[in-house]
Amino acid sequence: MKLTISKNELNDAIQQVAKATSSRPAIPILGGIKFEVTHQGVTLTASDTDISIQSFIPAESSDTVIARVEKPGSVVLPAKFFVEIVKKLPSDNVEIEVSDHFITMIRSGSTDIQMVGLDPEEFPVLPSIEQGDVLQIQGDLLKSIIRQTIFAASTSEQTPILTGALVNLQDQQLRFVATDRHRLAYRTAKVDSSDDLRFSNIVLSAKTLNELSRLIPDASALVDMVVADNQALFKIGNVLFYSRLLDGIYPDTSKIIPQSFKTELIVDTKKVTDAVDRAYLMSREEKTNIVRLVTLDNGGIEVSSSSSELGRVTEQLEAFKMEGDPLRIAFNSKYMLDVLKVIDSEQLNIQFNGAMSPIIIRPVDHPHSTYVILPYRTTG
Amino acid sequence: MKLTISKNELNDAIQQVAKATSSRPAIPILGGIKFEVTHQGVTLTASDTDISIQSFIPAESSDTVIARVEKPGSVVLPAKFFVEIVKKLPSDNVEIEVSDHFITMIRSGSTDIQMVGLDPEEFPVLPSIEQGDVLQIQGDLLKSIIRQTIFAASTSEQTPILTGALVNLQDQQLRFVATDRHRLAYRTAKVDSSDDLRFSNIVLSAKTLNELSRLIPDASALVDMVVADNQALFKIGNVLFYSRLLDGIYPDTSKIIPQSFKTELIVDTKKVTDAVDRAYLMSREEKTNIVRLVTLDNGGIEVSSSSSELGRVTEQLEAFKMEGDPLRIAFNSKYMLDVLKVIDSEQLNIQFNGAMSPIIIRPVDHPHSTYVILPYRTTG
Repeated sequence: MKLTISKNELNDAIQQVAKATSSRPAIPILGGIKFEVTHQGVTLTASDTDISIQSFIPAESSDTVIARVEKPGSVVLPAKFFVEIVKKLPSDNVEIEVSDHFITMIRSGSTDIQMVGLDPEEFPVLPSIEQGDVLQIQGDLLKSIIRQTIFAASTSEQTPILTGALVNLQDQQLRFVATDRHRLAYRTAKVDSSDDLRFSNIVLSAKTLNELSRLIPDASALVDMVVADNQALFKIGNVLFYSRLLDGIYPDTSKIIPQSFKTELIVDTKKVTDAVDRAYLMSREEKTNIVRLVTLDNGGIEVSSSSSELGRVTEQLEAFKMEGDPLRIAFNSKYMLDVLKVIDSEQLNIQFNGAMSPIIIRPVDHPHSTYVILPYRTTG
Repeated sequence: MKLTISKNELNDAIQQVAKATSSRPAIPILGGIKFEVTHQGVTLTASDTDISIQSFIPAESSDTVIARVEKPGSVVLPAKFFVEIVKKLPSDNVEIEVSDHFITMIRSGSTDIQMVGLDPEEFPVLPSIEQGDVLQIQGDLLKSIIRQTIFAASTSEQTPILTGALVNLQDQQLRFVATDRHRLAYRTAKVDSSDDLRFSNIVLSAKTLNELSRLIPDASALVDMVVADNQALFKIGNVLFYSRLLDGIYPDTSKIIPQSFKTELIVDTKKVTDAVDRAYLMSREEKTNIVRLVTLDNGGIEVSSSSSELGRVTEQLEAFKMEGDPLRIAFNSKYMLDVLKVIDSEQLNIQFNGAMSPIIIRPVDHPHSTYVILPYRTTG
């Protein structure tokens, strides 16, 4: 294997795939990046067996030569050092040559690097996903859906299935649900898929979805999603992202979202976020994060928190709408802030069924998201 | 005590003094900020007994009213919560009112905060430094001197005196020295002081100097420095910074810097920094940080490092000048990078006295800095 390749293109592809290498690999080969060089270009692959990322660098792109391949071949190079050295190489081009026993010479300007490469035959084989039914989705929409749901997933390995988000597709409706039993995030989106394409009980790890989100460029890139057996494959331009599905059955959350309510508020999203944030600062000092919300006779609300040592924060806010029973409720302000920060609507709707029942939060501008937070059962 | 004050001016002053509050105060009062309000303005003070910072907010500045004082007085407010809440208050103005038992009401827009204040009589009294002999120094010069020396100070509490920098002033020459016994940084500067002003064996903690440096705005602010008994006082605009001097006698370092050499190099600072940085990446994998430097017959140098598992990095560089004996030497690349990163000269001079003797590094453009690094004694 021998080629000369543009440093910047090589670096971009390495940064993309490197997220799939484990920092403490169970076996050395998993700490590496596989290079496969043909006259068409260079394919880089990294895998920690849970996720795998593959990036293809074409030899030529719009008449610009990116890689000059003298001899095709393949090798696995240790990722950690390689990822850091490439961006610091002195020349715009990098020459890579593999000789016997996978000894690899890397040359760039004044720098000569000799690396001990590994046998590419030992590298895990990527799952073969037949290009069957593809869901195509706008990259920025997928990023939003991920951001607006995965914060509610559990971080506890005691309930592995809840560390993921449930993904469903039916009748061209894509639906993400995440919950840690204390709060729940629910997001739907209309997508352009074939009528009969369905995903059911697909659970993807929140951590994985977060990595996927970072691979999607901010521009309106298109993402192709395919599900087969226990794998999901996402295709973003020249990058392939493979993820194992989480094992197990996701709990039925359909009954958690109440269909009726006794008290309803409409408030300004930014004002209520800032008020809860200030109350959170005080509640954090008590390590409880307890913040109280009380409806006022004048049609407004009061948000407050207190600390035995420090004192008390009280915030009075106007409501655009207040209907139903008067209310006095306490909740975890961190959970509430997590919701408030992802709501992309100037006003939000909050519904209550008394002090002991779930709080329901929805953006006013559109019906595609619903958030549920369980209240604290406090006295007084 | 009762006043209304501009949120931004209050916030700026709080951020300045807050650095002197300890996050885990030995006694609660040290976790607080003292407010002293007079008709002239507001003085904020924080202290962890090692350092104390005081900032004065004038009631008026260039005809703008910053604080409207209704009733002078004083109180100590817990810093941690107060520092964070002030910048998040909803209005441009903040009303602060202290009532019985130091209960303090803070009002801003929709926000009402009640805080449990502490008795200002319990707050430590700042050392009284009589405004005697003052050294006045340009802020950006002092920042440079600090940055170019304190990295070489020890971080080990086993030799407390070496965790500081030695500050001397004699014949209008200010001199900073820091060393951890493996490397040494030496920096002098000509200052405009009275002929007979002298500082000798003043040792200031590197951590403290770092905090001081952050308080100096980037503009060419002037800093006044006064030393008395076991304290140093720095005055930067409306801010006073007090620091205890470190106890003990700083070791004599005058004999560490060799006066002659057997090999001398002049090299490009950026090129040698980048080359050592790349070699460092490989040396770090071995956890030794060992990098080798060898003079070449062609008048250049070779910088290299190797790792038994990963391979080897070799860098060849030209030298503008190479004189004296051929050389083969090994050093800690992290220590070398620390020096190279603070050298503000396009070329640097490196002098050697063989593989076992200290390496001397100086900027070519000016004679005010000298750095010394002890080599590694390696075989081969």
